[in-house]
Amino acid sequence: MKKLVLAYSGGLDTSYCARYLSKEKGFEVHAVSVNTGGFSKEEIAVIEEKALQLGASSYVSLDAVQTFYESVVKYLIFGNVLRNNTYPLSVSAERIVQALEIVKYAKKIGASAIAHGSTGAGNDQVRFDMIFQIIAPEIEIITPIRDQKLSRETEIAYLKENGIAYSWEKAKYSINQGLWGTSVGGDETLTSNLPLPESAYPSQLERKEPVQLTLQFKNGEFVALDGVEDSPVNNIEKLNSLAASYAIGRDIHVGDTIIGIKGRVGFEAAAPLIIIKAHHLLEKHTLSKWQQYQKEQLGNFYGMLLHEGNYLDEVMRNIEAFLEDTQKHVSGEVFVTLYPYRFQLDGIQSEHDLMNASFGSYGEMNKGWSADDAKGFIKILSNQGKIANHVNQSHD
Amino acid sequence: MKKLVLAYSGGLDTSYCARYLSKEKGFEVHAVSVNTGGFSKEEIAVIEEKALQLGASSYVSLDAVQTFYESVVKYLIFGNVLRNNTYPLSVSAERIVQALEIVKYAKKIGASAIAHGSTGAGNDQVRFDMIFQIIAPEIEIITPIRDQKLSRETEIAYLKENGIAYSWEKAKYSINQGLWGTSVGGDETLTSNLPLPESAYPSQLERKEPVQLTLQFKNGEFVALDGVEDSPVNNIEKLNSLAASYAIGRDIHVGDTIIGIKGRVGFEAAAPLIIIKAHHLLEKHTLSKWQQYQKEQLGNFYGMLLHEGNYLDEVMRNIEAFLEDTQKHVSGEVFVTLYPYRFQLDGIQSEHDLMNASFGSYGEMNKGWSADDAKGFIKILSNQGKIANHVNQSHD
Amino acid sequence: MKKLVLAYSGGLDTSYCARYLSKEKGFEVHAVSVNTGGFSKEEIAVIEEKALQLGASSYVSLDAVQTFYESVVKYLIFGNVLRNNTYPLSVSAERIVQALEIVKYAKKIGASAIAHGSTGAGNDQVRFDMIFQIIAPEIEIITPIRDQKLSRETEIAYLKENGIAYSWEKAKYSINQGLWGTSVGGDETLTSNLPLPESAYPSQLERKEPVQLTLQFKNGEFVALDGVEDSPVNNIEKLNSLAASYAIGRDIHVGDTIIGIKGRVGFEAAAPLIIIKAHHLLEKHTLSKWQQYQKEQLGNFYGMLLHEGNYLDEVMRNIEAFLEDTQKHVSGEVFVTLYPYRFQLDGIQSEHDLMNASFGSYGEMNKGWSADDAKGFIKILSNQGKIANHVNQSHD
Amino acid sequence: MKKLVLAYSGGLDTSYCARYLSKEKGFEVHAVSVNTGGFSKEEIAVIEEKALQLGASSYVSLDAVQTFYESVVKYLIFGNVLRNNTYPLSVSAERIVQALEIVKYAKKIGASAIAHGSTGAGNDQVRFDMIFQIIAPEIEIITPIRDQKLSRETEIAYLKENGIAYSWEKAKYSINQGLWGTSVGGDETLTSNLPLPESAYPSQLERKEPVQLTLQFKNGEFVALDGVEDSPVNNIEKLNSLAASYAIGRDIHVGDTIIGIKGRVGFEAAAPLIIIKAHHLLEKHTLSKWQQYQKEQLGNFYGMLLHEGNYLDEVMRNIEAFLEDTQKHVSGEVFVTLYPYRFQLDGIQSEHDLMNASFGSYGEMNKGWSADDAKGFIKILSNQGKIANHVNQSHD
Repeated sequence: MKKLVLAYSGGLDTSYCARYLSKEKGFEVHAVSVNTGGFSKEEIAVIEEKALQLGASSYVSLDAVQTFYESVVKYLIFGNVLRNNTYPLSVSAERIVQALEIVKYAKKIGASAIAHGSTGAGNDQVRFDMIFQIIAPEIEIITPIRDQKLSRETEIAYLKENGIAYSWEKAKYSINQGLWGTSVGGDETLTSNLPLPESAYPSQLERKEPVQLTLQFKNGEFVALDGVEDSPVNNIEKLNSLAASYAIGRDIHVGDTIIGIKGRVGFEAAAPLIIIKAHHLLEKHTLSKWQQYQKEQLGNFYGMLLHEGNYLDEVMRNIEAFLEDTQKHVSGEVFVTLYPYRFQLDGIQSEHDLMNASFGSYGEMNKGWSADDAKGFIKILSNQGKIANHVNQSHD
Repeated sequence: MKKLVLAYSGGLDTSYCARYLSKEKGFEVHAVSVNTGGFSKEEIAVIEEKALQLGASSYVSLDAVQTFYESVVKYLIFGNVLRNNTYPLSVSAERIVQALEIVKYAKKIGASAIAHGSTGAGNDQVRFDMIFQIIAPEIEIITPIRDQKLSRETEIAYLKENGIAYSWEKAKYSINQGLWGTSVGGDETLTSNLPLPESAYPSQLERKEPVQLTLQFKNGEFVALDGVEDSPVNNIEKLNSLAASYAIGRDIHVGDTIIGIKGRVGFEAAAPLIIIKAHHLLEKHTLSKWQQYQKEQLGNFYGMLLHEGNYLDEVMRNIEAFLEDTQKHVSGEVFVTLYPYRFQLDGIQSEHDLMNASFGSYGEMNKGWSADDAKGFIKILSNQGKIANHVNQSHD
Repeated sequence: MKKLVLAYSGGLDTSYCARYLSKEKGFEVHAVSVNTGGFSKEEIAVIEEKALQLGASSYVSLDAVQTFYESVVKYLIFGNVLRNNTYPLSVSAERIVQALEIVKYAKKIGASAIAHGSTGAGNDQVRFDMIFQIIAPEIEIITPIRDQKLSRETEIAYLKENGIAYSWEKAKYSINQGLWGTSVGGDETLTSNLPLPESAYPSQLERKEPVQLTLQFKNGEFVALDGVEDSPVNNIEKLNSLAASYAIGRDIHVGDTIIGIKGRVGFEAAAPLIIIKAHHLLEKHTLSKWQQYQKEQLGNFYGMLLHEGNYLDEVMRNIEAFLEDTQKHVSGEVFVTLYPYRFQLDGIQSEHDLMNASFGSYGEMNKGWSADDAKGFIKILSNQGKIANHVNQSHD
Repeated sequence: MKKLVLAYSGGLDTSYCARYLSKEKGFEVHAVSVNTGGFSKEEIAVIEEKALQLGASSYVSLDAVQTFYESVVKYLIFGNVLRNNTYPLSVSAERIVQALEIVKYAKKIGASAIAHGSTGAGNDQVRFDMIFQIIAPEIEIITPIRDQKLSRETEIAYLKENGIAYSWEKAKYSINQGLWGTSVGGDETLTSNLPLPESAYPSQLERKEPVQLTLQFKNGEFVALDGVEDSPVNNIEKLNSLAASYAIGRDIHVGDTIIGIKGRVGFEAAAPLIIIKAHHLLEKHTLSKWQQYQKEQLGNFYGMLLHEGNYLDEVMRNIEAFLEDTQKHVSGEVFVTLYPYRFQLDGIQSEHDLMNASFGSYGEMNKGWSADDAKGFIKILSNQGKIANHVNQSHD
């Protein structure tokens, strides 16, 4: 029997796939879910039970939170990456790591096919398929949902006929949760003019009293929250849990899908937004003007290619080398105050702070330079414009 | 007697200059203030009276609000320009237009010198001097404050000796107000770690009830607020007056000065931030992916050169031509809700909305393209990576 | 009978299409060739005769040389565009204009289908199909060569059976000639290591005596050769005819196809290379540093999108507006000497030359600035580095 | 007596400095020349003798060829850096390393001042002073030539009076020779319209018979010439010696000086041009499209900052990390044929060649993808344009 690895989430689409592929297509289905931060142990246990009932030969939950952080999230922080200046790329980033883990697993167990539940209308199919094809062109990709275009009703009916009678009520919003943010789609996000109602967001406002936090970074990585050192992943989770209770980090991303259609998706990403903005502020104090300039150009580009599933292009490794190198002095503390629905960057403290007064004579007029120096500087800065104005004025 | 044009603000430094240059240096001082949105008629009357008392031969207030909008602000909106992703360039942008108006005025009245009150430590000296030198290299630039490095006390004493006894109490914060925002400097902004207290901001929270507004754009320009058509300048002022009462648009900019020192300045810029974010959202719905990508690159660069006083470099005109051309379809309405301290972009409505469902079969799976098309698309997108992986894997 | 427009070149593939589509598929075939500079009247007469014999209902040759220049070539010169720093985009650029002309013609005569002879392995299919689909999604695209994957032998046999017995000897190299260069593919270009032999190039070395030419540009356009004013198109053709006799402008382009495969193609493009290099030199004398910097970035990008068939993306119009605006002062004469196989840029003459000594005191030390000015300039330029070195050295 | 390090070249200006600073200013002058590839042992011996005669307390020649290669040249090759698409930055690059070596030496011997012979009109003063000030702000910089603006005649007269009677005939051209090229300035280069005559170039045409060479690269470095492995520095020198005898690599660079003036300088740089073009060709075969795109952007920027003396900006280290990372697969052989005055890139051979046919089914139509895949690809690529055209056409 041909082995097939199914990217399994426990939802209706992939449940249909699990049954359909094992029963109708005769595959030995090995269900896999890749945890990039969104699943608790309890949820995983439920998913496992479902998978086996549906006919999967095995189920495994791969814990990829640390891998997700190391191979993607870290660079999104280094690059202050917000797609279209708004979206921390929550889902886009996860899919990459999920695909990488799945294909690795498929190779490990010697599967000859990989199945996933994406439709033909979105970004995820591209992110999954590209990575599968590039790394394992010999493995067949099977996508029943994309190919058969079944309605929810048909899928439910099929499962019922097969004796699988879960309750598949459609949630009003489709929610996707992970370490780097939660996306919220449906209803209003299908229009151009309506915002999501508060109730659509998984996290609700629970705290109102402002609180000041200290985020400590070392070489660009988030190493301590309020003085408590922990792994970046844990710090992200702790910060998120706190900040989400202030209903911080909600917004709607309007973007171009890889297939050329514009789409709109709500998200809440309290920790990602606070971390990126805090990290960016620290960089404003510790990096040169040109470092900031090039980081902005390359960070945008990195985000674009990641969003579009181009993670395996070698240029991504090259940009990561660049970003890593920029973080040598991005160390220090950032002070942030949380308020309901918003946060404020209060300031920073760093021994690499280039605004720090301790360098005395270097950064002060009269000690570092004189009025005449300033005048000479400006005179020479004006040379090109002065010449151009003179030459072209007389001939225009 | 040699004619001199003095950029006069009514403050201590330029008051000292007015007296010193007319009395000690024997210039015929023509005081000028350029209104780029910050002065009321009453304030101007007070400034005029002071100038004449100090010994100026004439005083004139040049109204440059419309010019400011047409020559700079418009392009900052087109380019969604926020310096370091934060600062709408409020002061930087004004200085450019002030310098241009002053040099024009100096040429008109045949002045042989221009004086301004900048110190040798900041950006403004560069912005002023560069424009003066490029456009009128034959006019001498005189900067007593930069050259003499006097203390406030010395200046006050000098004026007192000369029978000028205004009260020159130093405000805790130095405030600079204009159409495109108000800067707030002093005290905490001289540190790296402290935020400005609420009281430091000129506008205070006065309204708490959320309100939804409609900003209408035509070819990128803000042509109506809540359905009332008016000039962009008037719309900016109306919006600002309303949004400032929600205490919206406050932040601190940390940036690199032209002379290589890092600096920190607070600002409130309610209308600029709302307009830029609303305009940007409208662009996300109406521009192609590549238009957005290039606009981001060029908008950043435009902001950098403007900030650094390089407004007269011809590349700025070239980028303006680019930006103007991108606005052909940036028309429609943006819905924004104001809350205390923050605002939310609700959505947009535009006949150029590329997400609009009206194009039916073009943007929908099964009508516009099939599952097989999507698979072919992805397969070919993967070609380069597939080859690279194959070739390099076997040789690494 | 359904009307079909066939992009017809007179070659084997499109001849097969003409017959196959009219006879087997029952289309009313309207054959069209779009002349972008490569065809003489005699060649067109031969093509017409063939087309009609093969069963076409009509044949027309659309003269698009001037359109080609106005809509593409002009901007390639403004942008000094050489793909991968080598290739003037000869064929890529032509295909765009051919596609635009064909779809315009198809709409004019009310055709319901367009056919072309591209295979499924190259760039041209993408350039053609994208433009057809974007401008006329209602028109069906038919591509027998891509779909049927016939061998040359099968095609020839089919035509013979149908009484069409031209001689279809396969030339050793496939040649594609137009206003902006001639591509040469085949044999050695299919390897990575072999150059094309001299005999592969259509133009052969005929002159050896060096000759100096004067290219006159006005606002970036090539308006006169050796003092003789003429249209840019005519000047390009005159220059090419002369320079080709020196065997100038040969090279091999190694590039990434749109479908992700690397390819190699020889070309000769004497006039394009001389014009671009001459124009670029004139810009070095007449543009500011930042204009040149941004032109390089945007010119590269423009070339990439054009190459990939993305000509209709609005960003291309925006970049054209930018490029056009940069050419305000790009006027003057460029002196070039032709030698066998190479040319030398001798220098330029322009009233907008920013290196011109006529501005005297502006551009000269001691008149324009002093040693002290220079020292002040450098001191302040060093500020950022001085601070960074001090701060980070003590903490590294 | 205060120790002073003098950057000494043996020419008139620095000879004047040596005498003037030791005799008139009472410094203990330590003359240093930094060899970045231009000096033979014999020349160094002559320079030493002169320095001591002029009053220097010591003379040392620092051999920095390897350092020059490791810290600058290597990255110029990785980045294919040609300033303004023409100039390999020969002199600009050397000055940086010379300044670094001099300041290191000054610190080592405890000097309190550094002197150099640059004028106030050029780039070198900026390159030297910036590096000195950033690394050793405590060391005074002394520049007699810039400050005193003496004529050659005055300098010669002064030296004669002091009993130093070398022959200081002014060469018609000022020549500057190093590992990465030789600059040639004077006479014609001061005009905009005249080329340098053949006789102005140090190397003259000596060989006419074409010869094919093989340049071997490993991770971007030039590791063997014609199969003979040697250090990159030696390979550069060998290649240059051969190629210069073909009079290859001559051109004139027109560029913007750091102080805003345009300048023109001739150069011959046979090996640099051949190596950069050969390396670039190898990259076209071994890098992805986006790697090439970003390398071009960053390489240009790196060259600009290097040229402008901004070598110590941390962004340079970051870009070097990027460039280094891109070279992982840039290994293989490049075949080049030398002809009088020109060279031809024949092709490459590399196990990382992405055009290599050995990957069979991945890069071939029908095996790697079908006609239908291609059609699906193009259909989806057209989505955005199709929608934009539809939406905007109906509303324009």
